[in-house]
Amino acid sequence: MAESMKGLKRSHRCAELSDRQVGEEVTVMGWVQKNRNKGGLVFTDIRDRSGIIQAVFDETDEALREKAASLRSEYVVAVRGKVARRSGAVNTNLATGEIEILPSELRILSESETPPFPIEENSRTKEELRLKYRYLDLRRPDLQRNLILRSRLATLTRQFLAREGFLEIETPVLIKSTPEGARDYLVPSRVHPGNFYALPQSPQLFKQLLMCAGYDRYFQVAKCFRDEDLRADRQPEFTQIDMELSFVDVEDVLDVNERLLASLFEEILGEKVELPIPRMTWQEAMDRYGSDKPDIRFGMELTDVTETVKDTSFAVFRGAVEGGGTVRGLNVKGQAEMPRKKIDKLVDFAKGYGAKGLAYLGILPDGTIKSSFSKFLTEEEMQQLIGAMEGEPGDLLLFAADETRIVWDVLGALRLELARQLELADKDVFRFLWVTEFPLLEWNPDQKRYTAMHHPFTMPYEEDLEKLDSDPGSVRAKAYDIVLNGNEIGGGSVRIFDPSIQSRMFEVLGFTKEQAQEQFGFLLTAFRYGVPPHAGLAYGLDRLAMLMAKEESIRDVIAFPKVKDASDLMTEAPGRVETSQLEELGLAIRTTEQPL
Amino acid sequence: MAESMKGLKRSHRCAELSDRQVGEEVTVMGWVQKNRNKGGLVFTDIRDRSGIIQAVFDETDEALREKAASLRSEYVVAVRGKVARRSGAVNTNLATGEIEILPSELRILSESETPPFPIEENSRTKEELRLKYRYLDLRRPDLQRNLILRSRLATLTRQFLAREGFLEIETPVLIKSTPEGARDYLVPSRVHPGNFYALPQSPQLFKQLLMCAGYDRYFQVAKCFRDEDLRADRQPEFTQIDMELSFVDVEDVLDVNERLLASLFEEILGEKVELPIPRMTWQEAMDRYGSDKPDIRFGMELTDVTETVKDTSFAVFRGAVEGGGTVRGLNVKGQAEMPRKKIDKLVDFAKGYGAKGLAYLGILPDGTIKSSFSKFLTEEEMQQLIGAMEGEPGDLLLFAADETRIVWDVLGALRLELARQLELADKDVFRFLWVTEFPLLEWNPDQKRYTAMHHPFTMPYEEDLEKLDSDPGSVRAKAYDIVLNGNEIGGGSVRIFDPSIQSRMFEVLGFTKEQAQEQFGFLLTAFRYGVPPHAGLAYGLDRLAMLMAKEESIRDVIAFPKVKDASDLMTEAPGRVETSQLEELGLAIRTTEQPL
Repeated sequence: MAESMKGLKRSHRCAELSDRQVGEEVTVMGWVQKNRNKGGLVFTDIRDRSGIIQAVFDETDEALREKAASLRSEYVVAVRGKVARRSGAVNTNLATGEIEILPSELRILSESETPPFPIEENSRTKEELRLKYRYLDLRRPDLQRNLILRSRLATLTRQFLAREGFLEIETPVLIKSTPEGARDYLVPSRVHPGNFYALPQSPQLFKQLLMCAGYDRYFQVAKCFRDEDLRADRQPEFTQIDMELSFVDVEDVLDVNERLLASLFEEILGEKVELPIPRMTWQEAMDRYGSDKPDIRFGMELTDVTETVKDTSFAVFRGAVEGGGTVRGLNVKGQAEMPRKKIDKLVDFAKGYGAKGLAYLGILPDGTIKSSFSKFLTEEEMQQLIGAMEGEPGDLLLFAADETRIVWDVLGALRLELARQLELADKDVFRFLWVTEFPLLEWNPDQKRYTAMHHPFTMPYEEDLEKLDSDPGSVRAKAYDIVLNGNEIGGGSVRIFDPSIQSRMFEVLGFTKEQAQEQFGFLLTAFRYGVPPHAGLAYGLDRLAMLMAKEESIRDVIAFPKVKDASDLMTEAPGRVETSQLEELGLAIRTTEQPL
Repeated sequence: MAESMKGLKRSHRCAELSDRQVGEEVTVMGWVQKNRNKGGLVFTDIRDRSGIIQAVFDETDEALREKAASLRSEYVVAVRGKVARRSGAVNTNLATGEIEILPSELRILSESETPPFPIEENSRTKEELRLKYRYLDLRRPDLQRNLILRSRLATLTRQFLAREGFLEIETPVLIKSTPEGARDYLVPSRVHPGNFYALPQSPQLFKQLLMCAGYDRYFQVAKCFRDEDLRADRQPEFTQIDMELSFVDVEDVLDVNERLLASLFEEILGEKVELPIPRMTWQEAMDRYGSDKPDIRFGMELTDVTETVKDTSFAVFRGAVEGGGTVRGLNVKGQAEMPRKKIDKLVDFAKGYGAKGLAYLGILPDGTIKSSFSKFLTEEEMQQLIGAMEGEPGDLLLFAADETRIVWDVLGALRLELARQLELADKDVFRFLWVTEFPLLEWNPDQKRYTAMHHPFTMPYEEDLEKLDSDPGSVRAKAYDIVLNGNEIGGGSVRIFDPSIQSRMFEVLGFTKEQAQEQFGFLLTAFRYGVPPHAGLAYGLDRLAMLMAKEESIRDVIAFPKVKDASDLMTEAPGRVETSQLEELGLAIRTTEQPL
C-alpha cells in the first residue's frame, strides 16, 4: 500500500520554494491539503511544516494525472518535478502563490482515512475531539506556529543565558516530599516499600544548593509538577525557566532579566521593549490598580476617596472606614448612561470578589447626577467626591467600601472586566512592569499565623528587619514579579543567606527548630559551610509562550496537554496498572471497606 | 555575623584576572581556599567557579590584616583591591600565578564551619560522605569542570540541532503505563483514585506522533525514568538527547549525527573527529570483536577457526561444532609466557560469561608450544591452527568453543579484560563507530517467542521482509548504534510507517490484534491518517558527558545523583509521607498481613 521513498530525496520544504527555483527540478514531501480536478487538470496542495505548495498534474502524463486524481486529504506524498511560474491566477494568500510544481513523479507514501475534523486554522471543532486526536490537531498551521515559537523561545533563552555566564544544570525529578506549598505528586519506591519520592514543584532548594556549591549562575528549563485542581490556565506539569545568581542583589537580577526579555521579544516578535522596564512597588500597584499584576496598557486607576467620604452620612462608606477599611473608586469614562441592568451585572460581578455591593454615580452629559447613594450625601459632599474622582460629564463612577484587601480585589477585578467589555487594552501592545517590595508575610486567618508570601527563604529589606517582631505584616521582602499585560509571567526574590536571619524567619513563621530541621535540614546544614548572597527568578514558560503567541489558553502552546481532570484524552492516562506492579510497590488500592 | 555586600559589586571572577588588570582596582568574591600567615603577611587564596586568585594583606592596614588572619577555609568573602604583579614567587600551577590582589577592603559575607572533608581535586574521601554533603563535593574543581562541560554539551547540541531545522518540543512526563519494556515508575492519580500515570522510559511514542503531526524534525533533551536495579552506571532518572526526523532513511540520520558529534568534540575538547565515522554491520562487529559495541582503539580481533579444528580429535572443539556452535580464538601478542595462575584467572573470568572453559596455546619465543590441548591435535593440525591465528613466537592464543552467542560473549569480554590488563587502549583517543543492520528479532528462550531487539516499531530492511515468516531470526533491522571507545552512546532506527508491515510485525511478536490495540492503540490509530517515513536516534547524555570528561562513573557528571538503592543520600529521598496524602490518593501501604 505504502510506496517507498527509495531513490528520492527531499530537496526543499514546500514553502521554501520561491521564484528563485523556477526551472529547477525539486522534490517535496508532505500531506495533501486539498486536491481538485478542474478543466482536465489536477491541482494538489501539498502541506508541510513550512507551508503549502501547489502541484499541477496536466495531460502530459495520463497515468500520473490519474494517480494524482486518486489523492485524498492527508495522504502523504512525494512529488518530484520542475518549478514553474503559475499558469493560472497568482494566489496572494500563499507565500508560494506565484509558483507551482509540474510533477514528473508522484509517490503515495501513506494513505489516510478521512480525518475526524478538517485540518485548518482557527478550528471550530470542539477541543475535546481535537485533544483526542491531538496528532491531527497538531497539524493545524496555528498550532504549528505556536510550537515553533515555543521552541525558539526556549532556544533563544538558552543562548542568551549561556552568553551571560549561566550554566544549565539539571536537578532531580525524583525528590523528597515536603509538606509546605501545594500538593505533591508522589512516586512510590519499590526498593524502599512504604516510602515515596515527590515530583518537584520547583527546583528551589536545589538551585540554592548549587549557589552554595559555587556554580555562580544557574539556569534550567525545568518541568515542575503540582497536584492541584486545574483551572483553565493550569496544567499538572508545567515548564519553568528557572535561574539563580550568586553575589547579586535585586538590581542585578532585574537587569539581566530585562535584557533577556528585550532580546526575546525583539528576536521572536520584532517587538522593541523599552528598557528599563518600569517598576512599581507592591503597595503602589495595589493602590493604583487593585492588583499585584496590573495591566498598565490602559488607565482607569483606582482612587482612594476615604478621606473625602469618611464623614458623610452614607452608612456603607462610613461603616467601612470606621471598621478600618477604605473607600475607593473607579472612573469609567463615557459610561455614565450604562443601563441599570448592566450595572447590576457589575454589582454581581463585584460580589463574586467579596464585595457587599457597589455604589455608583453617573454624571450624565447634561451634568445631572444619577446615583445609588445620592440621598446620603449633601450636594457639597457629592461635588467633593466627583472632584476627587476627577469626574466629568459622561463618566460613570463606581465605588467599593470594605476592608482594603477586599476593595482592592473588587475594584482590581472590576477594572479588568470593564476593560474587557470596553476593549480598553490594545491587543497588539506588550507592556511590561516590575512589581517589587512585596510584603514578606501574609496573615493566614485560618491558621492564625503568618505564612511566607513567597517562600520561607525570601530576604527582607535590611531596613525593615527591626520590624520582624514588632510589626511583621509591614516588613517588605526583596521579592519581585515581572508582569506582562496584566499577567504574572515570572517572579523571584533575593534569598536569606544569613543563618541568624533565617532562624528569626522560621520563628516568625511558627516553625519549631525541629520542624525547620525536619523539612529543610539539608539546606540549613549547607548554609553552615559558607553560602554566597544569592537571588533568583523563574518564569512560567507556558504562559510566556501563550502571551507571545497571543493565545487564550496554555493548552495551545503545549504539544500534549492535559484537561481539567488532569487526564490525557489521547492516551487515556492515567490508567489502571497490573496488580503485580502494585504488589512490587507494597501498595494496595484502598476501598471504603478497607481502613488504612 | 554575615556582612552585607551592599555598595560592592563584583568586577571579575577570580581567574578572569590577568596581568592586563595590573594597577586596576577590582572586586572579587568567593570562597577561602587557603589562608596562611608568612613573614607578617596574610596570603589568602580565593576560589570561585573560574579558579583561584591570591590576595596578600600586608602591614599597610593592620586592622584589615587582622581580619584577614581570622579567615578560615570556605568562608565566603568579598575583596576589593588593586591588582599587582606578584612580589613573591610566581605560581606556575595557577592561571593567575603571576598576579595578586592587594586589598583595601575585606568583607566576610558568610562564615563556615570546618567542612567534613577538604575541598580538593581527586578527592579520596569516600563517595558516600561526599554524596551526603553533595553541595560541598560539588565545590571541587573537577566536578565543577564536569558540570560545566555537561552544560556546554547540552547548549552546543541544542544550537547545532536548531541550525539543522530541529524543533525542541516537550513531551509529557506524566504518561500512560505500558507493560512492555523495563519497569515503570508509577504516579498515583488523586483525581482518579486507583489509576496511575507512569514516568516515561523514553519519549518514543510521542516523538513518533510528532512526526505524524508534521513537525518534521524534533529533538528534546529529555529526562527518562526506569525502575530497574541499578548498576554502577545506571540512574533511576537519566537524560537523553532524543531526536526524530521525517522523510529520511538510515543515511540521513547517520549524516546529521556524525556532524553533530564532530562539532561537539571539536568545540568542547578540540578533538577532530574524522568523517565519515566508520560503519560495521552487527554481524561483522560480533564476528570480529564479539561485541555489538566494539572498542576499536586496539586490535586483538576474534578469529573463527571452526573450519580448521572441526575434524580434530579434541572433543571440546568437535563437540561444539557438532552441536551447531563454533570455535574462535584471540591472539594475545607477547603474552606466551603468561603464568599459569594468570591464565587460570582468565579461565574463571570466561566462565563468568558462560564459557565451559578456555583452551590456550602459548608459542614460546624459542618456538616451543605450551598448550592445554596439544595432546589432542596432531602436529600438523596444531600448525594449521597457529597459521589460521597468525600465531608467532611470543603469542598466547586463547580459544572458546560453544554456541556462537556464548563464544562471542566470552571472547568479546575477554578481549576487553586483556586490553584493560595490558593497557592496550589509548585513553587519549576517541574512536567512533556505527554498528548497523542489527537483527530485528531476538529469540527469547523463556517465553519461547521472538521479541523485538530494539522495539516493535523498528523497520526491517525491505529486502529481508520476505523472511519475516520463513526465517525471522535472520531479518535485519534498520537499526543503528553509535559506539565510542566500546561504549554505546546512542542508538536508533528507521520506524515502520506502513500499517501492513506493522501488523505483520505484531503477529511475529505474538501480539493479538487486541493486545496491540490495547497497548499502542493511539499510535496505530494515528498511523491511519497519513504518516511520513521517519527515523530517529537517542543519546545517553550522562554517558556521553562521562566519556568526554574522562570519568569512570556517571555520578561524576550528574549534579545530584542517586546511589545503588535509588536513594539520595543528601535529601534522604525517598521518604515517608503523611497518612493524609495516601488517603487522598486512595492508597494503603500493604503489609504482609493485608492481602491485596
